[in-house]
Amino acid sequence: MAPRYAPSLRSRLAPILLILQAAFIIIAGFCCLSEFQDVNVIVILGFGFLCTFPVRYGFSGCGFNLLVAVLATQWALILNGIDSWYNTRIIGIDLKSIITAELCAVSALISIGSVLGKTNPVQLTLIALLEALVTVGPLKLSPKIKSLLWLIPYFEHTYNKSVRPANSIMLLHVFGALFGLMLTWILSRNAQEQGYEKEKFDKKSGLFSMLGAVFLWMFWPSFNSVLADDQARLGAVCSTYLALAVSVVTAAALAVLSSPRGTLNPIQMQSCILAGGVAVGVSISVIQQPWEAMALGLAAAAISATGFRYLQTHMLTAFECHDTCTVLSTHGLPGLLGWLAQLVLQIKDCDDHTVAIRFAVFHICVLFVTVSLSLCMGILTAFLLKLNFWRQPQNNKCFEDQAFWEVLIHMPLRNKKMLYQEKKQIEIHIY
Amino acid sequence: MAPRYAPSLRSRLAPILLILQAAFIIIAGFCCLSEFQDVNVIVILGFGFLCTFPVRYGFSGCGFNLLVAVLATQWALILNGIDSWYNTRIIGIDLKSIITAELCAVSALISIGSVLGKTNPVQLTLIALLEALVTVGPLKLSPKIKSLLWLIPYFEHTYNKSVRPANSIMLLHVFGALFGLMLTWILSRNAQEQGYEKEKFDKKSGLFSMLGAVFLWMFWPSFNSVLADDQARLGAVCSTYLALAVSVVTAAALAVLSSPRGTLNPIQMQSCILAGGVAVGVSISVIQQPWEAMALGLAAAAISATGFRYLQTHMLTAFECHDTCTVLSTHGLPGLLGWLAQLVLQIKDCDDHTVAIRFAVFHICVLFVTVSLSLCMGILTAFLLKLNFWRQPQNNKCFEDQAFWEVLIHMPLRNKKMLYQEKKQIEIHIY
Amino acid sequence: MAPRYAPSLRSRLAPILLILQAAFIIIAGFCCLSEFQDVNVIVILGFGFLCTFPVRYGFSGCGFNLLVAVLATQWALILNGIDSWYNTRIIGIDLKSIITAELCAVSALISIGSVLGKTNPVQLTLIALLEALVTVGPLKLSPKIKSLLWLIPYFEHTYNKSVRPANSIMLLHVFGALFGLMLTWILSRNAQEQGYEKEKFDKKSGLFSMLGAVFLWMFWPSFNSVLADDQARLGAVCSTYLALAVSVVTAAALAVLSSPRGTLNPIQMQSCILAGGVAVGVSISVIQQPWEAMALGLAAAAISATGFRYLQTHMLTAFECHDTCTVLSTHGLPGLLGWLAQLVLQIKDCDDHTVAIRFAVFHICVLFVTVSLSLCMGILTAFLLKLNFWRQPQNNKCFEDQAFWEVLIHMPLRNKKMLYQEKKQIEIHIY
Repeated sequence: MAPRYAPSLRSRLAPILLILQAAFIIIAGFCCLSEFQDVNVIVILGFGFLCTFPVRYGFSGCGFNLLVAVLATQWALILNGIDSWYNTRIIGIDLKSIITAELCAVSALISIGSVLGKTNPVQLTLIALLEALVTVGPLKLSPKIKSLLWLIPYFEHTYNKSVRPANSIMLLHVFGALFGLMLTWILSRNAQEQGYEKEKFDKKSGLFSMLGAVFLWMFWPSFNSVLADDQARLGAVCSTYLALAVSVVTAAALAVLSSPRGTLNPIQMQSCILAGGVAVGVSISVIQQPWEAMALGLAAAAISATGFRYLQTHMLTAFECHDTCTVLSTHGLPGLLGWLAQLVLQIKDCDDHTVAIRFAVFHICVLFVTVSLSLCMGILTAFLLKLNFWRQPQNNKCFEDQAFWEVLIHMPLRNKKMLYQEKKQIEIHIY
Repeated sequence: MAPRYAPSLRSRLAPILLILQAAFIIIAGFCCLSEFQDVNVIVILGFGFLCTFPVRYGFSGCGFNLLVAVLATQWALILNGIDSWYNTRIIGIDLKSIITAELCAVSALISIGSVLGKTNPVQLTLIALLEALVTVGPLKLSPKIKSLLWLIPYFEHTYNKSVRPANSIMLLHVFGALFGLMLTWILSRNAQEQGYEKEKFDKKSGLFSMLGAVFLWMFWPSFNSVLADDQARLGAVCSTYLALAVSVVTAAALAVLSSPRGTLNPIQMQSCILAGGVAVGVSISVIQQPWEAMALGLAAAAISATGFRYLQTHMLTAFECHDTCTVLSTHGLPGLLGWLAQLVLQIKDCDDHTVAIRFAVFHICVLFVTVSLSLCMGILTAFLLKLNFWRQPQNNKCFEDQAFWEVLIHMPLRNKKMLYQEKKQIEIHIY
Repeated sequence: MAPRYAPSLRSRLAPILLILQAAFIIIAGFCCLSEFQDVNVIVILGFGFLCTFPVRYGFSGCGFNLLVAVLATQWALILNGIDSWYNTRIIGIDLKSIITAELCAVSALISIGSVLGKTNPVQLTLIALLEALVTVGPLKLSPKIKSLLWLIPYFEHTYNKSVRPANSIMLLHVFGALFGLMLTWILSRNAQEQGYEKEKFDKKSGLFSMLGAVFLWMFWPSFNSVLADDQARLGAVCSTYLALAVSVVTAAALAVLSSPRGTLNPIQMQSCILAGGVAVGVSISVIQQPWEAMALGLAAAAISATGFRYLQTHMLTAFECHDTCTVLSTHGLPGLLGWLAQLVLQIKDCDDHTVAIRFAVFHICVLFVTVSLSLCMGILTAFLLKLNFWRQPQNNKCFEDQAFWEVLIHMPLRNKKMLYQEKKQIEIHIY
């Protein structure tokens, strides 16, 4: 049986997508100008691989992810260019700005991970648009807020050179994870009593998911070194590689330790092997020694594994918060750990007490603003999406490709004449 | 039961492959000299990914694709070097020439997409050889024809600098698609009455195909910027990325709109998300503004989606033309659109009427020659391959890996002694 | 039923991993210093793809491979830095050293290919550590042995410039294959009588394996050009590409010829298409003409295909040696062929008889030391791993993910309250 909300999906998703796309092109037509800068091309390749992350949900996971990524990137591209447009009526688009926009899209993709399977693509599109607005918008509109928020490289002007600027765009992991948690907390409240009967994975879909995780693992060093300048890039690649390597070993050890039967859990492995990359990404600007990266990788994998085993169930039973891709333990907790590591390492390196204290205050403010912004906007977005107008899938239709995809047998060949003949033959059989 | 034509495959495929390979090596031995140029290495990586395209047909799709790609590349490498060999008795092989040869191979791979599943590897090999000959051969032999055909950067010498040369190698999409259509039209004529019972896809094989499409999507920017010089490369990457992003959104919107149930079709999505890349690839030399690339991506996805939904069935019922990978709507129509876009944009930029008209005439000639060459040679090749000598698979054996691959259970371990013991035990059981 | 040895895995694997990781971090803390060099970043991406190689064994193949790779890389990183630590108390870690360490890890991954499925992860970890020790250790401790072994670029100082130094790190293919053969020969001796009932592959897992093989094929040119300097890199990429292309064609031709039904064997194809890359990798420094690379690719594929068809069965029945990933015919034989090709080509190029003879003696010594070292250390390692203490899986538990992974249905949602309610309902049904 066709799901009842499918026609309404038709009347909602298509207009939204077409209107958005038309708007993006019109904006591009009126105020974008192409500039070409010497940014490494590889980067964009590495980014594309982030799209293969939630393959385990089949067509929906893979397809909606791509859709949301390109929408959020285009939207962020426009938002990022607003101040330039305000001054010169021109938005410059080059590889650098596409990469920055993709970083904002990554934040939306993380959030969507926690509601995947329980929402329809219309809702996913809205989440991406609203989240990109929160991530980019205010920064560009008000230079006042700018100095407090987490996308700014202006910190270096305020303090002396011994304090490295916070490459805080990487706090997007924390932002995305908390935003997503609020979404799923409010959106899937009543689901806990019945459970999602279709939420499971078998060996084959698990292998696709493993493939996605291995790809992410391989390309994470590029991801972390995207915004670094040429000198710091190789260092960032090295540190990230070391942290990721340690994460794999630690994740395997802790998975075996924490399991009653002494076995490994594939889903847990997939989220924990990436934890080191997240933590190092947040604190990349202050990590200088290999052992710092390695220890951070170990701590991140440990905190991620613990979160997966104990926090996950606790959140479900106590708060009725169902986190599909476990974004809290994959991105949230390691991101917070990375923030802490940056604070500690930066203060350790400071000779001057005043500078250290001022840095600590700034650093804590950045986290506080990020966290409260993500929590508030997550709750607001969730209440907006909870409206019946958006027709959220019923619980027994969740995690089901058939609601959105034609996954029936594909037979373009049998032409109408043939079908007609078959029908006649059947009729002959009956009489 | 083993297919009846298998032994004949053995007596035909192996000799052909070995003779070809021996010939290639002998040619290389007598007249090739290795040169090293500073071409970006990444390019070759990106190209390799094109091989994962038709994974949905399992071992045959993936394996035959690789086989045809390497054969066509080597053959095109030799053909491309013929004029150099004529002058100096040496064919220089460097990364640049390998990349150009791979572009010719791409044309063959597109054509093969339309007959995949309905032909045997001997036929595929012949198609690749003949098509590479048509693509490359005449250009190198006759400088007279050269000035009319679609692989030439000599246009800039004829006209003034304000007219950008047609980077028309990208018309290979149109060439390959029409060539393939003619092949499938003649080769699989009588198939329509019975249909191919084994042509279907399930969720798991569909995910492999989705994976291939996502890879192509990610690496398309590199593909389009291969032949550009260093300055234009970043611009080509940006334009292609934007067009691809718009294609994804448009493809999703139109798929939902055109489906009766309001659902997405995975196969349709896979072909439409690439349409923008094809169209921009053909017209890359004249696209300067982001909105041009984006509008072209939208139009290409729209034309591709329309073609998939309506033209596909129409072609099947009216012309009895069965297009396995829907190359017409994936490569053919977007390629033609790109050609049109180049014509319009180029004329719009021209100040001088005479130049504009001369450009238009040239541009139309290029398309005319390309189209008529591909149609004629496609029909000739198809009639050649229709001969009983090549033993085309019977219709009920089409789309079946078992005809060409050992997909039985693999048990290298059980040695002969063991099997003998088992046999004895069975005999004991019987008596 | 849970396998009996699972709890013991818990008590062994986790402590070993944690202790190793702690030790690595402590060593890094005391004596590593990060250096940044301008090494191409792409390389590390290419390397990561090597990890997707044995996907056909599902979670274990993919997961254990990643685990072993990161452990061996870290261990080799430390061993490689021992002499630098001896002099300066500092081990420099940069991209170059990570890449060299990964090459040593590749050697371990090859060996593990032959015992995969028949060992537990504790044993795999030990193999990787011991093999990396053999590969790297002695070289760094004794400059005397150094001059005889296969990791040395010092040869060029001894002889005149016309003799190109042996880039003999690529003999790691031969080393890894023979090491692995010894391991599997001793470890799985008694298995032959009963066979591994779970060792089989179906169409879907075969496609994952095909995907891994295609990835390796695409990235092999980067792999072979890793240690080359910038000038020689493009040449190495070209030669490797040509050899790989010829390998594909030859492998297909020979597979069809040698099969009774004239069909292709997917496993055979996967190992033979890589043979050319292995052979060219070993002899990369002396290959100058395209035809040399192509002929070597043809010979390597031929020897690999012959080995797969006939040697494989012979080894099993005659020596009771079960080689899971057929490393002998994929890496061992093509590696030896490459060694021979280097000898012949080098001598052919020498004008001076004395130099030629001295080179031949040196070259044969290098192979002799490599082979005897790998055989001896392989046998020693195998006897160490055969101890009951390591609890090797019983034969009927081999090739089984369930022994190490939780592959049951994943239902994090159903909370305890719910399960309790369900239980009650079932009880009500019963009464």
